[in-house]
Amino acid sequence: MQVYGYGAISANDTLKPVVFDRKEVRAGEIGFKVIYCGVCHSDVHQVNDDWGNSVYPCVPGHEIIGRVTSIGEGVTKFKQGDLIGVGCMVNSCQQCEECKSDMEQYCTGPKGATLTYNGPTVPDGSNTYGGYSTHMVVREEFAITIPDGMEPEYAGPILCAGVTTYSPMKHWNLQKGQTLGVAGIGGLGHMAVQLGKALGAKVIAFTGHESKRDEILKLGADEVVVTGDENAMQEKAMSIDLLINTIPYPFDLSIFIPLMKKNSSLVMVGNFIEIPKFVPADLVFNRIEVAGSLIGGVKETQEVMNLCAKHGIRPQIEVIGMDRINDVFTKLRGDTTDHAFRHVIDMESLHTEVAGGEPDAESIEQPTRGEVVGA
Amino acid sequence: MQVYGYGAISANDTLKPVVFDRKEVRAGEIGFKVIYCGVCHSDVHQVNDDWGNSVYPCVPGHEIIGRVTSIGEGVTKFKQGDLIGVGCMVNSCQQCEECKSDMEQYCTGPKGATLTYNGPTVPDGSNTYGGYSTHMVVREEFAITIPDGMEPEYAGPILCAGVTTYSPMKHWNLQKGQTLGVAGIGGLGHMAVQLGKALGAKVIAFTGHESKRDEILKLGADEVVVTGDENAMQEKAMSIDLLINTIPYPFDLSIFIPLMKKNSSLVMVGNFIEIPKFVPADLVFNRIEVAGSLIGGVKETQEVMNLCAKHGIRPQIEVIGMDRINDVFTKLRGDTTDHAFRHVIDMESLHTEVAGGEPDAESIEQPTRGEVVGA
Repeated sequence: MQVYGYGAISANDTLKPVVFDRKEVRAGEIGFKVIYCGVCHSDVHQVNDDWGNSVYPCVPGHEIIGRVTSIGEGVTKFKQGDLIGVGCMVNSCQQCEECKSDMEQYCTGPKGATLTYNGPTVPDGSNTYGGYSTHMVVREEFAITIPDGMEPEYAGPILCAGVTTYSPMKHWNLQKGQTLGVAGIGGLGHMAVQLGKALGAKVIAFTGHESKRDEILKLGADEVVVTGDENAMQEKAMSIDLLINTIPYPFDLSIFIPLMKKNSSLVMVGNFIEIPKFVPADLVFNRIEVAGSLIGGVKETQEVMNLCAKHGIRPQIEVIGMDRINDVFTKLRGDTTDHAFRHVIDMESLHTEVAGGEPDAESIEQPTRGEVVGA
Repeated sequence: MQVYGYGAISANDTLKPVVFDRKEVRAGEIGFKVIYCGVCHSDVHQVNDDWGNSVYPCVPGHEIIGRVTSIGEGVTKFKQGDLIGVGCMVNSCQQCEECKSDMEQYCTGPKGATLTYNGPTVPDGSNTYGGYSTHMVVREEFAITIPDGMEPEYAGPILCAGVTTYSPMKHWNLQKGQTLGVAGIGGLGHMAVQLGKALGAKVIAFTGHESKRDEILKLGADEVVVTGDENAMQEKAMSIDLLINTIPYPFDLSIFIPLMKKNSSLVMVGNFIEIPKFVPADLVFNRIEVAGSLIGGVKETQEVMNLCAKHGIRPQIEVIGMDRINDVFTKLRGDTTDHAFRHVIDMESLHTEVAGGEPDAESIEQPTRGEVVGA
């Protein structure tokens, strides 16, 4: 199947039209037309090779909403025309302890989980292309049902920003009436605030920007604390049961530790940040855990999607055409706050371009997507 | 009651004979003659004011074994002549959530737990004097029963070194067949190795000293890895379910994180160490927790004492007279490894000195020990 998309041919490249073949659906897989795709900050990092692990060409996109167009042999969960979502993974070994416990993101199989773009977590030269493309194929276990009442343009960011903050709330067992802290109120943080409220927690949002206060309160946060305000920070000493830290750049862990209650957990979901040196006395005296958490499993992703549908939780988005993607990347590379929490590409813009005649696109190699275990 | 002891009058002082009054037993308390007291590395840090929180005069000692000599009104657990132990705490509020959950060490009462020496955790000017003294008084809830078959000279170090490493094994739920890592094989580490084996874990010991290998294997460790041996460290990649880090000086956390399995916990029990800056990507990708843990509750202390009695677990000790305490402190201040894992003071040396006539001792103020809540 000939597929058009937008991708980077090398590090720090602007995104350009690309064209490639995707292998047709095999047993256990579904094919779909991409209709919306969220723009995650990871997309920018991966295109930039900020993490040193990028594989090129790089066709980003892992907040993908689509309409099913074809069904492989043995598929039972979906039929043509269904509205589905695909998040950060398209495959995993399905046989290790983690996969069997619905934690495919921590798959310990030979290649680890296969990410939706930028390939397997244990790189073996193979690559995958994501949702900045007209059509995709995924094994059915990795497709999420979009429930009635969830508008497709809002659903994409739930698949990454939503589940990444929801998963630690479940794993560290956030209880009704407990206090959730959310540090960094961007794409992930603004979902965390809403999800925490839906789970019955008191939510305190920590932001570097006083200018975001009203907007964050509107999301439902009970309180907003500006991290630079030492007095306000001190007032929150030992008040947090679970802190989800979404800050995506190096930050001083030691300003947050005194906010933690005894027997509490501070969970980082931002990748590849750097923690300056710190004295962990408070960890010892108050039995505080500092941990990391990676996206979420497929089951959790479906759960958080259903929760958002039920509670009217939506990301705050700005819908853009594919022609604006490089402007948005430029914005996300800066430290401005004058944009929506999440941008979502209306893929119709690309479908229309393709329908209008063969676009001028660079031909790139066919992506891989691994075998379908057990199909 | 007139009590003799050894204490530091100011920071970095050598320990000198001191004499002071202890308030007689009140309702709910027991008085006892100290017969053995372990020498913990914390004693040296506290005398040195290494942590900046020392209160003087400082009479150390929190691995205390004694024989009950008097019983306050309403005491039911003990009678005269009983062999008992007192660890790191002598009091707590008994009313907060932590106290009610047998975690008195994390007491959130107005003063926190009252440490056996160096007073309440929330300093209010009051001070307590520890087990480097002839007699003590403690509320009965904080006294541990020394079971039959446990020799009194070995029991002391279990009250601190033992429970400090046992408590995280219980809290982070070390299971039979799992792999326990122990980093730093000194007073705490050598207990952790034995306790891990008793709980059915495979134990890998991490030490900086090749010269300790045989001794550590004799303690029961399944494997010994020298931390400076990069190949040996790499061979242990992602093999540890729970790592208890007893290293008491600044160390590079990032050499241990790659050793941790997915969904594992790395727990620091050393106080006031410093963690250099690190990139916590592995925490995120493998959902690893880095946590701290402080000694253990009274119930856990009794549990670990009983476990040691049952399984023949003993600290490796060298018994000394009180006259050698300053030599031992000098040794512990250095980085030598040519000494026993734990020194234990045979307090008979001090009792004999006192019995021989009033020793030349500096008179110091009476210690406090807080009220007996609920007695």
